[in-house]
Amino acid sequence: MTEQTTEKLSELVLDAEGKPLTKNALKKLQKEREKEERKRQVAERLEQERLAREAASPDYSADFYGKLPMNQSHAKTGTVFVAIKDIGEEHVDKAITLNARVQVSRPTGAKMLFITLRQRTETVQSILVVDEATVSKQMLKFATGISAESLVKVEAVVTKSPELIKSCTVQNYELKITKIYVISSADRLPFTMEDASRPIAQITEESGFSPIHLDTRLNNRVIDLRTITNQAIFRIQATITKHFRNFLDARGFTEIHTPKINGGASEGGANVFEVPYFKEKAFLAQSPQLHKQMMICADFDRVYEIAPVFRAENSLTHRHMTEFTGLDLEMAFNEHYHEVLYMLGEMFVAIFDGIKKDCANELEIVNRQYPFPEFKYLPKTLILEFPEAIQLLRDAGLTVDDHEDFNTATEKKLGELVKEKYNTDFFILDKFPLSVRPFYTMPDPNKPGYSNSYDFFMRGEEILSGAQRIHDAEYLTQRATEFGIDVGTIKPYIDAFKYGASPHAGGGVGLERVLMFYLNLGNIRKSTLFPRDPKRLAP
Amino acid sequence: MTEQTTEKLSELVLDAEGKPLTKNALKKLQKEREKEERKRQVAERLEQERLAREAASPDYSADFYGKLPMNQSHAKTGTVFVAIKDIGEEHVDKAITLNARVQVSRPTGAKMLFITLRQRTETVQSILVVDEATVSKQMLKFATGISAESLVKVEAVVTKSPELIKSCTVQNYELKITKIYVISSADRLPFTMEDASRPIAQITEESGFSPIHLDTRLNNRVIDLRTITNQAIFRIQATITKHFRNFLDARGFTEIHTPKINGGASEGGANVFEVPYFKEKAFLAQSPQLHKQMMICADFDRVYEIAPVFRAENSLTHRHMTEFTGLDLEMAFNEHYHEVLYMLGEMFVAIFDGIKKDCANELEIVNRQYPFPEFKYLPKTLILEFPEAIQLLRDAGLTVDDHEDFNTATEKKLGELVKEKYNTDFFILDKFPLSVRPFYTMPDPNKPGYSNSYDFFMRGEEILSGAQRIHDAEYLTQRATEFGIDVGTIKPYIDAFKYGASPHAGGGVGLERVLMFYLNLGNIRKSTLFPRDPKRLAP
Repeated sequence: MTEQTTEKLSELVLDAEGKPLTKNALKKLQKEREKEERKRQVAERLEQERLAREAASPDYSADFYGKLPMNQSHAKTGTVFVAIKDIGEEHVDKAITLNARVQVSRPTGAKMLFITLRQRTETVQSILVVDEATVSKQMLKFATGISAESLVKVEAVVTKSPELIKSCTVQNYELKITKIYVISSADRLPFTMEDASRPIAQITEESGFSPIHLDTRLNNRVIDLRTITNQAIFRIQATITKHFRNFLDARGFTEIHTPKINGGASEGGANVFEVPYFKEKAFLAQSPQLHKQMMICADFDRVYEIAPVFRAENSLTHRHMTEFTGLDLEMAFNEHYHEVLYMLGEMFVAIFDGIKKDCANELEIVNRQYPFPEFKYLPKTLILEFPEAIQLLRDAGLTVDDHEDFNTATEKKLGELVKEKYNTDFFILDKFPLSVRPFYTMPDPNKPGYSNSYDFFMRGEEILSGAQRIHDAEYLTQRATEFGIDVGTIKPYIDAFKYGASPHAGGGVGLERVLMFYLNLGNIRKSTLFPRDPKRLAP
Repeated sequence: MTEQTTEKLSELVLDAEGKPLTKNALKKLQKEREKEERKRQVAERLEQERLAREAASPDYSADFYGKLPMNQSHAKTGTVFVAIKDIGEEHVDKAITLNARVQVSRPTGAKMLFITLRQRTETVQSILVVDEATVSKQMLKFATGISAESLVKVEAVVTKSPELIKSCTVQNYELKITKIYVISSADRLPFTMEDASRPIAQITEESGFSPIHLDTRLNNRVIDLRTITNQAIFRIQATITKHFRNFLDARGFTEIHTPKINGGASEGGANVFEVPYFKEKAFLAQSPQLHKQMMICADFDRVYEIAPVFRAENSLTHRHMTEFTGLDLEMAFNEHYHEVLYMLGEMFVAIFDGIKKDCANELEIVNRQYPFPEFKYLPKTLILEFPEAIQLLRDAGLTVDDHEDFNTATEKKLGELVKEKYNTDFFILDKFPLSVRPFYTMPDPNKPGYSNSYDFFMRGEEILSGAQRIHDAEYLTQRATEFGIDVGTIKPYIDAFKYGASPHAGGGVGLERVLMFYLNLGNIRKSTLFPRDPKRLAP
């Protein structure tokens, strides 16, 4: 600080009340500043000396760490990248290369750093130890500064761990890092992965941990989905669709794709999204109902479709969304719709068996964060008729009407009663009252007032709704009219049955519901990657 | 006719000019009418005598034919229904039951009727012969009257045919019908199945056959889809998705389902359908681009989705629709986007191999109606770089710009040149000029002006478009700004890359295009069950 600036200082520096400082006060201030300046100069000299020392003994690790330039696929080096899940005996004492996320890092003393590296649900412990040849103090400092969730490229020697590393999925080996480069660094996260992955049992007043609000998770879904639990949940989701298809493919079903933009509303005017379509008006399909039935009329006999389904329902519940994934199928039968019903029952058993077989690890992972009672089902699915369900409920003291649909609470109660009596979380309810089903439902010829229709339940909540459909154009017209539907608006649908139509039945399953109820997640947004409801259109 | 009515007749009957008839004219008229009446009486007496004769020798087949009541699943009889494709040596001289369509029937003499029965693509010849015990003349008359495409339940004895029945798929056996009932009768068809199935080679001026206009087919799609050719085409479609999934499942990909209703337009504002969403405005996904990339940021590493894709393009071409089925995938890579590109090449080879293996019969069927040159592909897919394609075109005398995208004609020409030189209908074009690709495309670091992006071609038309994407939030923002995009509108997308993002690449395939070009169908509406274009919203 020179005289000159002190002069200027006197012109500028004001006291707390905004008046220029007195001469004495100014002198005091100047002394303080000179003291600070001396301090700064000492620090600077020390830093220069340190740098000089370092220059004299240069950073021998300089090439072994750093931030890589953005990967633009510059070159193919032929490097073999090892997956964490594949690390094994053959790698011991050998150098491997891998790309992974820094899940968490923990410095120990001045010369050591533990880093947990992660690839999806797999983790491995790695360690960085300052030595005389490969890992310098500078390298350690750099590695310590890498933010959690950053992506790194690591070269390391695999060593056998003297004891089981319980905090990682690779428990017998650890990595001794020799090179570490940042591929893509992570900003500060809106919540830590640890918080996002914490078992709900640990979130208590005592522990002091607070839960992350579902909306916060969904707003930051890209990070939330990285948790081991979410990785597991959505692998189970993919397993459901896989077994759905495998089962049906093996039974001669054809996968189809039908249009979601239609000139008419598929299930009547309520709850349908309208889309301006050039100069016309179109509607988003509320289900592939009409088209899958047309496919039966077109002789495809057995069809299924996995596709989004749109419902403009302005309600926020734990099990409704404005868009979900429909697993739809339709099947011609020879004599009786139970040919279809029995097959649907078998299909779910195949799906549940498939989850158990393919996802044992995933189930355990989900169970760790969100413990749930095992999903029970029978090898031969229980089929109850509607009046039997009524009786069960009445026996339990509930007042229920013979011909009314159940509300959610009654369904839940029925689920409990069935579980108690039959030890199953999955059952079929057949023969619904005709009055509570859509106009195209086939009436039961033997029981007036009832219909050839069914719902499937998991843990007391509906996951499939289906029926034998009316395949006679004349009768379909009559029923539509009785329902007050303007048959002119559904002419292409009715006409489809005029050229010889097979008796047929089918159903529609909500994929996210199956997943949610199987895992007892409590909210359908947890079993949907990017849920949509009246208040949520992003991300 | 009584006097009284004649009296009245005189009051009513007027001549051609509107005046009452003269008395003479009236008398003449009355005589004519009496003559007619006598004729009628004779006919009536003859009919009564016939009925009396029939009553004397009652219809011994009365229970063996007729129209069944609408199938409402009245009962389970335990009847075994045989599929036409399963008819074999074990059925000879035995009675079987089957439900099938009457494809065509042909009376021969007064006592015989041939009926071709059909189930999907399988046909069998059946015969009805009047005898003394089971098939009466009345039964024959009833069967003759069954309209084409009606569904019937038939009981028949399987007999070995003395000669090959070339017109049917079952060539060694025929059915001797003992009972025939109509399950669902067909109205007069808008076109015959024979016309709809006629090989285009037979539609000539000489033959006099005229083609069925595509619009007529699409307007009556339920009937059109019954043709053996359409059954085959859409089985091949399902085979494509099956092998797409199988290939990716085996390589650690996860199937995902991302929302089609979004708060922002996925690929910029053009060609997007707007949807009023409660009190907000939403958009239909033009692709799952943003969400599948978010899934990479969410550590799913390898994802695919099969789902509808919406494009509000107001154009009517042979290869564009407003809605189609997207086969989308995205994959993190370790070092170079060619890891993805090579895998995509192998994937298509697996799909093409799968079609050949699983659909030999279907290919032959399509070939019969719409002959097409065999689809040629190499075991290791040819990859050309953009400048190489330019050179090929220039060598062939075309004037093409170094950095402009090809138009359809140029693409077609390129396809021909590649076919000539490399004998393949399938190839990859890599390294497109940066300027013709979306803002999120990664530039090639080694060749200024080019990018790490690619298109795949079948028979000279594009079926896949893809690239390495920019995974760096800062650079992505810069590129979006350079493209004049308001980065505020794509904030959730850009933010996804802020928490450590893997380098990744991917692509989107149009399912209907792959099918259309493989079979050389010439119009994408032929490879879509229920196509949508600016002029078509139904059925």
